[in-house]
Amino acid sequence: MADISYTPSIERLAQAFRTLPGVGKKSAYRMAFAVLDMPEEKAKAFSESILEAKRATKKCSVCQNISENDICHICASEKRNKNLICVVENPRDVNAIERIAEYKGVFHVLYGVISPLEGKTPEMIKIKELIARVNELCSTSKPEEIEVILATNPSTEGDATAMYISRLLSPFGVKVSRLAYGIPVGGDLEYTDEVTLFRAIEGRATLV
Amino acid sequence: MADISYTPSIERLAQAFRTLPGVGKKSAYRMAFAVLDMPEEKAKAFSESILEAKRATKKCSVCQNISENDICHICASEKRNKNLICVVENPRDVNAIERIAEYKGVFHVLYGVISPLEGKTPEMIKIKELIARVNELCSTSKPEEIEVILATNPSTEGDATAMYISRLLSPFGVKVSRLAYGIPVGGDLEYTDEVTLFRAIEGRATLV
Repeated sequence: MADISYTPSIERLAQAFRTLPGVGKKSAYRMAFAVLDMPEEKAKAFSESILEAKRATKKCSVCQNISENDICHICASEKRNKNLICVVENPRDVNAIERIAEYKGVFHVLYGVISPLEGKTPEMIKIKELIARVNELCSTSKPEEIEVILATNPSTEGDATAMYISRLLSPFGVKVSRLAYGIPVGGDLEYTDEVTLFRAIEGRATLV
Repeated sequence: MADISYTPSIERLAQAFRTLPGVGKKSAYRMAFAVLDMPEEKAKAFSESILEAKRATKKCSVCQNISENDICHICASEKRNKNLICVVENPRDVNAIERIAEYKGVFHVLYGVISPLEGKTPEMIKIKELIARVNELCSTSKPEEIEVILATNPSTEGDATAMYISRLLSPFGVKVSRLAYGIPVGGDLEYTDEVTLFRAIEGRATLV
């Protein structure tokens, strides 16, 4: 079977879509054709929104979260407890926690986890920025008033990264915690995998 | 639960991705963040490829297929039988048939099917262009040498569109055919739906 290609410009556009996460060959072509079907102004706006997002977005100098200002609105807020830092893998995790509207601390975005398999070393994520930040906090607050919640994902890499960071933080004497593992709310014991169940038993809470 | 938004430029970009087929809210954000992670030049090339695809792509004046020239390479080829026209719904169908590398005729792209539910009338797809084309062919070839294969999808709308076109073509005296319905090669009788099975029996071929 010969592989038939479309016009060069459509091939280029489909190729660009394929580099996006979760986009396969067929979807990429469907997207390219959808662009062709767009009215001229809509395609222009789409094209412009890509450049604009790149141009307007920078990283907050405190927490590294994406922001259009030097300091993001969370770090700039006076209502937030600056001594409570929740460390997450990426900006989407910040929004996941912000959605519950209960967390009153601030964040620190790592942009990934340590993963030797993918060649991601500790230097390639925002760990030294976190250490510098905790170090600076310790000069204005007592260490026992500071808490770092390690909220990396419950994966092998997420766990390893949390372990790595907790070891770096231990000399400061600040409190370091990890999100609880357990059965998700609304979940079913019968369908919970063994590792989760084991962690749920391990982390059981005393009621009386 | 409050719906937390990212920066305005990221929201705009995610919104643009959401208008593409098969892209939901979560995928749109993942794509937007993938764009943020791209090196500057790659994002620029992506942005440019959208404009370029819109700019460079036109419709072949003969078969309406997408092309970067006035007449597409299939219609321009001397090896193709211009009296055999395969009518398809969209350019992706042209490529599907070209991939088998067996078809020696030309194409006609309708850009959709008649669908009263979606407000798509016969005037909104390239039917009158097809009729005009067959009319012109009849002035240079004998009608019995001309064949139009209706290769719209085997759906209610595809069937109805094929019926509609065959009725418009009947006065010309050209041969009009439809793709065969049946069990797909490698398929399993046991798992074939009743309608397909019925069509397969109806369209059975005599062996001896």
